[in-house]
Amino acid sequence: MEISKDHPRYRSLVTRERMSELVREGVVAPTGLIAHGRGEAFDYLLGERTVPAANHAARAAAAYLLEAESPVITVNGNAAGLCAEGLISLARAVPARLEVNLFHRSPERVERVCRYLENAGASDLLGREQDAWLEGIASDRARCAVDGIRAADVVLIPLEDGDRAAALAAAGKVVLAIDLNPLSRTAVAAKVAVVDELTRAVPNIERHLIELRDLPDERRRLIAEFSNEQNLERMRNAMCETLHQKG
Amino acid sequence: MEISKDHPRYRSLVTRERMSELVREGVVAPTGLIAHGRGEAFDYLLGERTVPAANHAARAAAAYLLEAESPVITVNGNAAGLCAEGLISLARAVPARLEVNLFHRSPERVERVCRYLENAGASDLLGREQDAWLEGIASDRARCAVDGIRAADVVLIPLEDGDRAAALAAAGKVVLAIDLNPLSRTAVAAKVAVVDELTRAVPNIERHLIELRDLPDERRRLIAEFSNEQNLERMRNAMCETLHQKG
Repeated sequence: MEISKDHPRYRSLVTRERMSELVREGVVAPTGLIAHGRGEAFDYLLGERTVPAANHAARAAAAYLLEAESPVITVNGNAAGLCAEGLISLARAVPARLEVNLFHRSPERVERVCRYLENAGASDLLGREQDAWLEGIASDRARCAVDGIRAADVVLIPLEDGDRAAALAAAGKVVLAIDLNPLSRTAVAAKVAVVDELTRAVPNIERHLIELRDLPDERRRLIAEFSNEQNLERMRNAMCETLHQKG
Repeated sequence: MEISKDHPRYRSLVTRERMSELVREGVVAPTGLIAHGRGEAFDYLLGERTVPAANHAARAAAAYLLEAESPVITVNGNAAGLCAEGLISLARAVPARLEVNLFHRSPERVERVCRYLENAGASDLLGREQDAWLEGIASDRARCAVDGIRAADVVLIPLEDGDRAAALAAAGKVVLAIDLNPLSRTAVAAKVAVVDELTRAVPNIERHLIELRDLPDERRRLIAEFSNEQNLERMRNAMCETLHQKG
């Protein structure tokens, strides 16, 4: 479909067409498009920009990643489709392992998402074999890799389901989420929820990570002082401001 | 996919699976799933219920439909997929013509959506032939039926694109929208925007319509007094309340 560049939502429409194309290729699940739409709505309420509170959360997430012993970044179909290069680059910078972890899991889709990431430059991916289990999830989504999520102390979950986020937190892991819905169970279960659009949030976390690499005191201060409750309140306020400004 | 009934978003997940299935059947466009997701997010901010301001807007929309000379209800893939029976029932109650009118138009999809509606009980559908044009839209989406949208004085547009909503208003038609985003160009361009989920809004409009059928003075009072600007402000306030209550 031809999209007119004059359309006020041109960029958003191009991303939509791209995500739809990735459904045809089997990388993104059909219901992944619905999740993408939910994100679009919340991003609209942020004015499609990284607000100060989200930037602060990105910095705290970077601090946690640098302090981790076994950090893992999970990747589902939407995260791969929207931000493969960014996630691969962030994983190298930490360094962290990448684990492909799908809500709608089938061996074929796992393979497609893995290949998509490998074509984008990923190596040493986890997730083709998931033979460990997380307790507290009543489905296939409990599956994880024994050397990945199962062994991790810190897990960055971009665009993750609430069940799994809660199970990861219950398993004692530090959960860092990237999620545009400040009311979601994922955002609430996280130690740090970065409420920002994925392609803005991921490079921003990497930027902070590079800045914080030689600042261990600053990292520990950020971790000690960060309150996710306060963060989510600031994000909810930012969305209300947009609801009133645009009126 | 098996969905656990314990999942807090069970109903929403079932609708998602159904909409995905309708993509496979060619009734819903892939990017229609993204639009559905946007709606889900805004509905979440309404607490997934018809708030008083939305109910008042539904009553005003019913009044306009009863006062119309040539009312038309447009139906796209998402509207058909979510609420075919409700829209057919409302059209009979007014009575109004139904016109199939797609954002992603192809003869095959038009035929599929028409058949889907006819299987649900629709007759006398418009939209297979669209040989008239609306001015002010730079695409195929300008197309409409000469006996339908082109001739209508009042058009009810569930889940419609902003370009077309603005073009309909510019063509002098009374635009009644059903749209969950109170900031959308569609909601703003409308004479009445019912900011409510489709399967709640449509039967609610029909209920008001039946009540108002023998109350012409009440209808005219509703029309004279309704302010869409005030309506949208109340809807934005309702969403902010949810953002704060859930914190």
